[in-house]
Amino acid sequence: MTTSAQHLTGVVPPLVTPLTPEYDVDTASLARLINHQLTGGVSGVFVLGTSGEGTFLTDEQRQTVLETTVSEVSGQVPVLAGAIDTSTARAGAHIAAAQKAGVDGVVATAPFYAATHPAEIERHFTRLAAVAGETPMFAYDIPSRVGTKLNSALMIELGRQGIVAGVKDSSGQETSLRQLVLDRAAAALDGFTIMTGSELTVDTSLSFGVDGVVPGLGNVDPAGYVKIFDSVRSGDLAGARQEQDRLFRLFEIIDVADRRRMGASSAALGAFKAGLYVLGVIACPVTAYPSVPLSDEEIAGIRSLLERAGLLD
Amino acid sequence: MTTSAQHLTGVVPPLVTPLTPEYDVDTASLARLINHQLTGGVSGVFVLGTSGEGTFLTDEQRQTVLETTVSEVSGQVPVLAGAIDTSTARAGAHIAAAQKAGVDGVVATAPFYAATHPAEIERHFTRLAAVAGETPMFAYDIPSRVGTKLNSALMIELGRQGIVAGVKDSSGQETSLRQLVLDRAAAALDGFTIMTGSELTVDTSLSFGVDGVVPGLGNVDPAGYVKIFDSVRSGDLAGARQEQDRLFRLFEIIDVADRRRMGASSAALGAFKAGLYVLGVIACPVTAYPSVPLSDEEIAGIRSLLERAGLLD
Amino acid sequence: MTTSAQHLTGVVPPLVTPLTPEYDVDTASLARLINHQLTGGVSGVFVLGTSGEGTFLTDEQRQTVLETTVSEVSGQVPVLAGAIDTSTARAGAHIAAAQKAGVDGVVATAPFYAATHPAEIERHFTRLAAVAGETPMFAYDIPSRVGTKLNSALMIELGRQGIVAGVKDSSGQETSLRQLVLDRAAAALDGFTIMTGSELTVDTSLSFGVDGVVPGLGNVDPAGYVKIFDSVRSGDLAGARQEQDRLFRLFEIIDVADRRRMGASSAALGAFKAGLYVLGVIACPVTAYPSVPLSDEEIAGIRSLLERAGLLD
Amino acid sequence: MTTSAQHLTGVVPPLVTPLTPEYDVDTASLARLINHQLTGGVSGVFVLGTSGEGTFLTDEQRQTVLETTVSEVSGQVPVLAGAIDTSTARAGAHIAAAQKAGVDGVVATAPFYAATHPAEIERHFTRLAAVAGETPMFAYDIPSRVGTKLNSALMIELGRQGIVAGVKDSSGQETSLRQLVLDRAAAALDGFTIMTGSELTVDTSLSFGVDGVVPGLGNVDPAGYVKIFDSVRSGDLAGARQEQDRLFRLFEIIDVADRRRMGASSAALGAFKAGLYVLGVIACPVTAYPSVPLSDEEIAGIRSLLERAGLLD
Repeated sequence: MTTSAQHLTGVVPPLVTPLTPEYDVDTASLARLINHQLTGGVSGVFVLGTSGEGTFLTDEQRQTVLETTVSEVSGQVPVLAGAIDTSTARAGAHIAAAQKAGVDGVVATAPFYAATHPAEIERHFTRLAAVAGETPMFAYDIPSRVGTKLNSALMIELGRQGIVAGVKDSSGQETSLRQLVLDRAAAALDGFTIMTGSELTVDTSLSFGVDGVVPGLGNVDPAGYVKIFDSVRSGDLAGARQEQDRLFRLFEIIDVADRRRMGASSAALGAFKAGLYVLGVIACPVTAYPSVPLSDEEIAGIRSLLERAGLLD
Repeated sequence: MTTSAQHLTGVVPPLVTPLTPEYDVDTASLARLINHQLTGGVSGVFVLGTSGEGTFLTDEQRQTVLETTVSEVSGQVPVLAGAIDTSTARAGAHIAAAQKAGVDGVVATAPFYAATHPAEIERHFTRLAAVAGETPMFAYDIPSRVGTKLNSALMIELGRQGIVAGVKDSSGQETSLRQLVLDRAAAALDGFTIMTGSELTVDTSLSFGVDGVVPGLGNVDPAGYVKIFDSVRSGDLAGARQEQDRLFRLFEIIDVADRRRMGASSAALGAFKAGLYVLGVIACPVTAYPSVPLSDEEIAGIRSLLERAGLLD
Repeated sequence: MTTSAQHLTGVVPPLVTPLTPEYDVDTASLARLINHQLTGGVSGVFVLGTSGEGTFLTDEQRQTVLETTVSEVSGQVPVLAGAIDTSTARAGAHIAAAQKAGVDGVVATAPFYAATHPAEIERHFTRLAAVAGETPMFAYDIPSRVGTKLNSALMIELGRQGIVAGVKDSSGQETSLRQLVLDRAAAALDGFTIMTGSELTVDTSLSFGVDGVVPGLGNVDPAGYVKIFDSVRSGDLAGARQEQDRLFRLFEIIDVADRRRMGASSAALGAFKAGLYVLGVIACPVTAYPSVPLSDEEIAGIRSLLERAGLLD
Repeated sequence: MTTSAQHLTGVVPPLVTPLTPEYDVDTASLARLINHQLTGGVSGVFVLGTSGEGTFLTDEQRQTVLETTVSEVSGQVPVLAGAIDTSTARAGAHIAAAQKAGVDGVVATAPFYAATHPAEIERHFTRLAAVAGETPMFAYDIPSRVGTKLNSALMIELGRQGIVAGVKDSSGQETSLRQLVLDRAAAALDGFTIMTGSELTVDTSLSFGVDGVVPGLGNVDPAGYVKIFDSVRSGDLAGARQEQDRLFRLFEIIDVADRRRMGASSAALGAFKAGLYVLGVIACPVTAYPSVPLSDEEIAGIRSLLERAGLLD
């Protein structure tokens, strides 16, 4: 595998953060999750992202996640860490802490809570790059959470300047992803990484030139995503599509929990954690406070969908 | 004035955080700003809110703001502190720090970045109240930033339980504000504070039962807002309206900066700071990094509007 | 009453269109509704607006509504007619038909379905004014339906040119309404009418200079709105507020129908019609096809709220 | 080609409606446009859709478009007609007129202006199907204009009942399109047509099972889209991608017009018409009133992009 933190390819799941019933980081479960991923054939792991509930954790908890991950991965694949916070100063502090813990790359969004402008987003990443130094930094485009869409032209320009090493696109907009790929080609910026965060369109995204995927559902089934990646690489698009279709249906686990009782984030992350719990990978399916946890009945519903997808014997 | 941190009334401006050109907290300017407010007759001050750029500052900078303010106000009026962050754990840490610094009340939003649900918002405030202990906590309703509207029925229920002391409504929805007032009356929850954050409709909001206002524009012209409040209290609604109309026009300062160059937050907060700079209250008009600063020409435009409003001789 | 179609004041309810169980216009019920309004003291009626389900009706049905209304009102108050359609050509055809039927004024929105621009909205109203000729035309600002907010400066400019006689503001934004009032004063455009379509903030809107109200809830309780108007005019703001508070609570009828079964429009218009049905004014509470009708149980719930509001003996 | 109006495949462009400078339908230009399409190898044409400015035209103008098209196409390919209007009654009248004019299929959206609910959308299509009778009816999913997303499960159910023959998906959401394809397979509803209206992702959509495309840009370059379709069918995905990439860049014509002067619809449709004007297909590039027309300079800019795409010698 030619993956490096500078130019990512393949499957880099955004790891959930296993918690104890008391909402502490469960390092033993995290270690098992990492091994579940490495066994599945992932080419990197991404901690403290949206799926990692990074914005819920205290600095101490974040530190625990970083240290456990770096130690457990032990150089087998690159470790990326999210540095997602409201402002440049705060995201910069997370970057510094992640570097100190020994990660291979960092991932930052635009500022949020306050309304921003592309010129301000450019200033933001430029200063963060100075903090990151030699550590590659990826821009994370997630307008549903941040309220701003990262502009393709700006991203390519920041890539040209060596400020960002690439983009993780969780915008859900295939055309903007394709725009990035075409703009990268037009700029002859071959080393610039483009990853999709959309777990339901991976086969097609890879086929038009995206380098890899950061699939939340990959927590549960990393091997499935690796199979899609390998199939596309070997030219077997029909095989890739068949596997994507299986995972498309597996993604229905996020619709099991009752949205009248909890938010969309709790339902989706709760489903990933419930899946890992059912698989015996993590010890407790709870999501970060104040998220409402899934009921036993909802967890049983998720178990059925895992069975249907062939993940339980 | 019968105001207390437990039951606020009157004008409680959300103070901007004066910064040096190097983006440090300018404590001398902050002290002058506080005196500008006290001279203007405010009944409280609110630091580290949205106008205070609380989400941009580091914990150390926040600490400086808290200490300077508590010391400078010196008990003359209640000091409120924002504890605005993405999750319960983080907002709780801010509450603990603010209490330690000696504030009289704290102000927290719903969690953000992750999508939430009313049940999760209830869990959030309930746990924060346990942290706040005897210090009154106000819920801050600002859906444009947080992505969720606080529900009137939930707020009144949390008031009934003693979890929140009141609401600061920056939703911009007069009907939701009125709903709160009517629901408070129906619940006979007289001690529950309702403040509006909408600086352009203060006269009418006070006339239908809102207790006071948290006006960003009050940074520049606290006396104007105090005049509206006093006029309504004395039954002079025509006088209140005339003053509100003057301040409505003064609010045009937020439209001076070129929105093609900067975000809406930078334009609005930059205008408040430019106004204070022109008035000689603060030494430097810069907004927090990565916000784009106003140009000299834009600051001159704001000066003209201050002149038109009678704030410069 | 000094109201005229050129300069409206007072209460001008947007009449619902009573339908038979077969979805024909029920002219007998419409006549009773008009008498219910005139008895209530309204200063005008507005047919074929949003509450009138104008966009649901065929041209023949619209014609029936226009003729019945003009005949039944018989000059006692001005009759306004909605000319709400996707484009200039179509709205123009509705204006021509309304004129021919003898209405006193017409009401048009910006174009919708296609995305528009202020310059295109200006072209739209300019051409419609040529169709309307001597008949006063009001601009109807309802961004929730049309997708565009009418800009205050443009409205005042169109008023100055004699193209629109005024604005009906159903934006729900008190500040934009106040902006209109201030801009009208700055332009010394005294004859320009400003009506609010927000039935829950009438007392305060009137107090800062709005001329009148077009309340959907006025279908059910026109006398209540007339009482608010008269109270404000006579300087009795406390009385106005008390009546507004009563009507605020009565407006809860729109929350009775189950939103899991039907859309928001069906629930609100269904509630107004159910209220009129319970009061014996109209013969059938059905809303236009394909709206889901309210159940008997839901209608009973609305009856209870009418009782609570003192509308049933 | 196995296309029929009942089960569409291939490229079915949504034809613009050529207008004279006086805003009449230019039937000679429309005839040339149809021949431009047939020469390009399209498998159907769709008139009076969003690109056809159907919501701008009077009933007489619509009739002219229908008759001209049916006559000019003369049975060589199926003719589809849009029946896009605010309510069931109005859309039904358009369907009846289109049938009388001899079209092969009709296309209808959910109701709009009023807020709707899935149950109401179901009632809407059910009644429209009764009007359409033997003529196949397609559901048109365009939430950006209509305000509601058509639900995959409902569409498949309506397909199962024979109410709709398929869906044209202009939601821009690849995952919802893929959901439709998977749900169709799960329901074994092979004859149900799924077309995408997203002209920038045609190669990938076809590769995962979509039947064809309704590309606005196909007005200008129908042969390009036919080439994508044929390439995918013959298994040449690289060739399909190369052609899609060329058309992706050609789509930049919609960004030439100054959005500070006109709306997004005017800029996009104006670009398609300007392209056809530059190619000599239509005689006048004007879009429907009140849209602002493109300037000569903007048309020249579009000419350059056509040259770059190899469409001019």
